Amino acid sequence: MRQRIQNINLSIRKISEKASKQENIVRFDIGQPSFDTPKHVKDAARKSLENKQGYSPMLGLEELRKEISREESEKKRLELDFNEVMVTTGGMGALYAVFAARLGENDNAVFNDPCWGPYKMISEVSGNNWSQVEYWDEERKLREEAKKEIRDADLIVVNTPSNPTGYVLTEEQAREIGEFADKNNTFLVSDEVYHRLTYNKEHYSPAAYSSKSAIIGSVSKNHAMTGWRIGWVIDEEENIEQYAKVSRASTACPPRISQYAAIEALKTDSHAEEMKKEYHERRDLLINRMNDIGWDFIDPEGAIYAFPNVGEDSWKFCMKMIGKGVAMVPGEPMGPESDQNVRICFGSTTKEEIKKAFDILEKELA
Amino acid sequence: MRQRIQNINLSIRKISEKASKQENIVRFDIGQPSFDTPKHVKDAARKSLENKQGYSPMLGLEELRKEISREESEKKRLELDFNEVMVTTGGMGALYAVFAARLGENDNAVFNDPCWGPYKMISEVSGNNWSQVEYWDEERKLREEAKKEIRDADLIVVNTPSNPTGYVLTEEQAREIGEFADKNNTFLVSDEVYHRLTYNKEHYSPAAYSSKSAIIGSVSKNHAMTGWRIGWVIDEEENIEQYAKVSRASTACPPRISQYAAIEALKTDSHAEEMKKEYHERRDLLINRMNDIGWDFIDPEGAIYAFPNVGEDSWKFCMKMIGKGVAMVPGEPMGPESDQNVRICFGSTTKEEIKKAFDILEKELA
Repeated sequence: MRQRIQNINLSIRKISEKASKQENIVRFDIGQPSFDTPKHVKDAARKSLENKQGYSPMLGLEELRKEISREESEKKRLELDFNEVMVTTGGMGALYAVFAARLGENDNAVFNDPCWGPYKMISEVSGNNWSQVEYWDEERKLREEAKKEIRDADLIVVNTPSNPTGYVLTEEQAREIGEFADKNNTFLVSDEVYHRLTYNKEHYSPAAYSSKSAIIGSVSKNHAMTGWRIGWVIDEEENIEQYAKVSRASTACPPRISQYAAIEALKTDSHAEEMKKEYHERRDLLINRMNDIGWDFIDPEGAIYAFPNVGEDSWKFCMKMIGKGVAMVPGEPMGPESDQNVRICFGSTTKEEIKKAFDILEKELA
Repeated sequence: MRQRIQNINLSIRKISEKASKQENIVRFDIGQPSFDTPKHVKDAARKSLENKQGYSPMLGLEELRKEISREESEKKRLELDFNEVMVTTGGMGALYAVFAARLGENDNAVFNDPCWGPYKMISEVSGNNWSQVEYWDEERKLREEAKKEIRDADLIVVNTPSNPTGYVLTEEQAREIGEFADKNNTFLVSDEVYHRLTYNKEHYSPAAYSSKSAIIGSVSKNHAMTGWRIGWVIDEEENIEQYAKVSRASTACPPRISQYAAIEALKTDSHAEEMKKEYHERRDLLINRMNDIGWDFIDPEGAIYAFPNVGEDSWKFCMKMIGKGVAMVPGEPMGPESDQNVRICFGSTTKEEIKKAFDILEKELA
């Protein structure tokens, strides 16, 4: 077995294993929507069963690639062609394809601090180096240390809206980091899998400001479709052709029935606004309750997460609170500056559960 | 972009691209069943839509893992536990996970000559070396050159029934190659995705004879479910844990709805025998027609392929015959000894199509 695979630490599983054994617990640790896939999307999957369930084309069904290019063109404020789209087995499949196709053993990927943990794992499996640096200062300008890291890196990941903080880039930030990466020939991977989930803010893609960039998208969170495993990568056709080799070698092609569901989700998408309305309410409630406790946190402007500083070791805090009935994810694996933060997912819980969990937390921290 | 990715040649796509532009053509080049997924399997997928479509566990649904361990226990003639099963995104996902977890840049995988082309691609994406050698002599004994290669290799792939030849190992062969690999500490990957498709022969797993081995399985071919993307790997629990890191980093988890379909396919599987009966008839017809032409070939004892020697350059022959209305795959990418062979898939065509194609071939070769 390869050493670099054995070295990968799935420490975060300790949380879900402990939480799943406990009765009567609020699961803030699960990073997926509480909503089920909308009925009309499931109906489209049902209908697709009338046809033959053979392999899909390696790059995905043309109809889905066209729907994706339409949506991404609006979002990126650019005109895309469907040949610039590869459908993948989830956003994870898209990220892996880009990393494995682009980065060799001596190449370095840079991630924000904090960042979604699996970026590190993708790097470690694919076999390249990574580093982490806090990108933004309090005035929402690129920090000097970040500029240095980006300049030296081969690839930078920008994630807006952000998992785990809910931070959302402004147009100026998207432009600054996009143009800076472009100027320094650092390939930009813009992970926008939460792009429809912003609260009182607009989504801007940094990829729109770089000629050397790929966008990662997915139906998982925006459309409550995590189990279907449909994501995508957007890039120039000649780059897509290289990513496709990784995608083919690791998955052959994305699942067919899921692609029909995804076509419907992108075509008829009013459900996304309804879910967002509910997330928005949960988020406002959560902000109030975190303020009541007196925690320090960045306002979640998007996605389905808050990332408060709890003022003590994140692992100890999380393990203790599971015992009390509240499961959260420690910040430590998400970045060296985050060992006192915890990730709270408000996507997976009802308002009643948020209230119940914070009643417990308030009592425990009193 | 990494050089090793750019170097990968998808030459075989030329065939399907040319064939799909041509009207009135028999598609022997498509390696998948002509049958659609059985109705009761689709019904199980429909029924699963009544439940929430969230992420599945990383290793797959426990119910599916139990069904797989039951089927594989019977086949391997060993008692397996479901903890020794990881469900993956197709058999391809299983192969990729094993290669990427086990083999470093200086490690070597050995494949039979000829072999299914994607093994090479998986190696090249994952980043290890590979070599090819003909495993068996005419007496069905391991060749001396093969023994040397296996001894020197880190991993050997054995594929029975074989794509592209239809060759099926006897019990003695399974034992000889399993024990030889085991004795020489060469990890054995036993690709058995066609294990239910043997004609007048029994399937034997070489993995049953090695303590250092993994079995690759899939519902794609045995159950006409290529579009669903469900495969698996069987190995000791501690190895599964390492493969799971690759699977997680490249796909997160397998699609949920497809797993419910796979559970039903494995539980109620009489359709597999019915399909096999039809394949058997096609195979007998194909053997007769190849004999009429006078081609040299190994009798297809399993899978859905024949691999005749056509006595001329396989690329030229295939490109020419597409123009005449018969699409086949050149043997050249499958092994250095196979540049005059072509792969004919009888799984994807009706008996009428086989007749029509061979009427054309006979006329052209007269």
